[in-house]
Amino acid sequence: MKLLAKERLDYIAGTSLSIIQSEEVFSFSIDAVLLGRFISVPIQKGRILDLCGGNGIIGLVMSERSHAEIISVELQERLHDMAVRSIDYNGKQARIQPVLADINDLPGSLAAGSFDAVTCNPPYFATNPQSDQNKNQHFTIARHEVYCTLEDVIRTASTMVKQRGKVALVHRPERLTDMISLMRKYRIEPKRLQLIQPNDKKEANIVLLEGIKDGKPGLKCLPTLCVYDEQGTYTKSFREVYENK
Amino acid sequence: MKLLAKERLDYIAGTSLSIIQSEEVFSFSIDAVLLGRFISVPIQKGRILDLCGGNGIIGLVMSERSHAEIISVELQERLHDMAVRSIDYNGKQARIQPVLADINDLPGSLAAGSFDAVTCNPPYFATNPQSDQNKNQHFTIARHEVYCTLEDVIRTASTMVKQRGKVALVHRPERLTDMISLMRKYRIEPKRLQLIQPNDKKEANIVLLEGIKDGKPGLKCLPTLCVYDEQGTYTKSFREVYENK
Repeated sequence: MKLLAKERLDYIAGTSLSIIQSEEVFSFSIDAVLLGRFISVPIQKGRILDLCGGNGIIGLVMSERSHAEIISVELQERLHDMAVRSIDYNGKQARIQPVLADINDLPGSLAAGSFDAVTCNPPYFATNPQSDQNKNQHFTIARHEVYCTLEDVIRTASTMVKQRGKVALVHRPERLTDMISLMRKYRIEPKRLQLIQPNDKKEANIVLLEGIKDGKPGLKCLPTLCVYDEQGTYTKSFREVYENK
Repeated sequence: MKLLAKERLDYIAGTSLSIIQSEEVFSFSIDAVLLGRFISVPIQKGRILDLCGGNGIIGLVMSERSHAEIISVELQERLHDMAVRSIDYNGKQARIQPVLADINDLPGSLAAGSFDAVTCNPPYFATNPQSDQNKNQHFTIARHEVYCTLEDVIRTASTMVKQRGKVALVHRPERLTDMISLMRKYRIEPKRLQLIQPNDKKEANIVLLEGIKDGKPGLKCLPTLCVYDEQGTYTKSFREVYENK
């Protein structure tokens, strides 16, 4: 497999898989791995759609939990190319299909209402004046709502998921009100929420939220996960999820 | 002070105050004390409104944190009478005013838009068929949405609170989606959320949520509070809040 300049091959925690990363283009964060472990996936068969797929990290994590067909949609050609090579390297060509597309203009080959589950780790930041945005265009698009807003993500997810299918997102807690309001607006009823804190004394900095298309009201708040203990090492609970231990 | 049949006088954790309780009529839960400690109160002066005040527990807890005038509104005459006597017993007559009223028909003497903060520990359960409801009418009204729904509470809170004033609620996590959606509907922007878990392995069973009238979007998720440790005793973090230690 060919690595381009400044690219490296990293292990994905809790799997036997590797992934191409680049500090100059895109590196996944723990958020993506947590989402890939959090989503309720169909185990034996079905179809899963990952929106804003980046270098393919969430698709790869899910491919170790499910035999479903996984479609990973990414807008940026450079990231899509990294996803293609990582999927090949791991021998996952038959399981994960990387698609270069804008989530607001998905190809007709992806049928609406045909997915059992939809995931997304969207850009976290509102679009700021040009000067505030990251100078690196790859980062800007991946991190800011330039090409897709949270509403775009949730509207698209609702369109693509089956009745009673799952939609799961990871985001910053400051957007939780928007996530919940928009899910309701697009008939995705929030069902499972989990907060992630750096440690047991700090405010949550990650939120995972899963809803069901036309599901019944009633939210469960799973036990909050603390990443580090007092010694600054991963907690047992966090390792169980992140490292699959 | 006169205690009626089956009434008892209990200490309120973390205060020097006592309160009249009755297992046959109403006993507060930790939820009420947590809400009284969670709400951002004006310290030196101002006005606070407590809706569905019950035996006055939340007003009494807040009276130890704030010099504001506190109005505690309760619909049930029996509970209102307990609140009156508890307020007298603690010498808080000049600080807490118990009002016997329906939150959907508040007396004109309580001016809309005049409160710095509004609290409510509402009935938790949807109104079920008669047979499912608690046989004891006092419990039924306090626990089921017979006389006020969550929407009634949030609409009234929004009417009564000042611009930029605070509205804080305690509820079960399963209603969090409704709480957030209804707050947005009535222009209370959610700003602070805290989950309470029985211990670090269990799902949250209490949620505290505070919003600001016409506030800017952006929610903080405070560190999740676990009530018990592995030995089954209160955690240090919980005692700091509940017992004020």
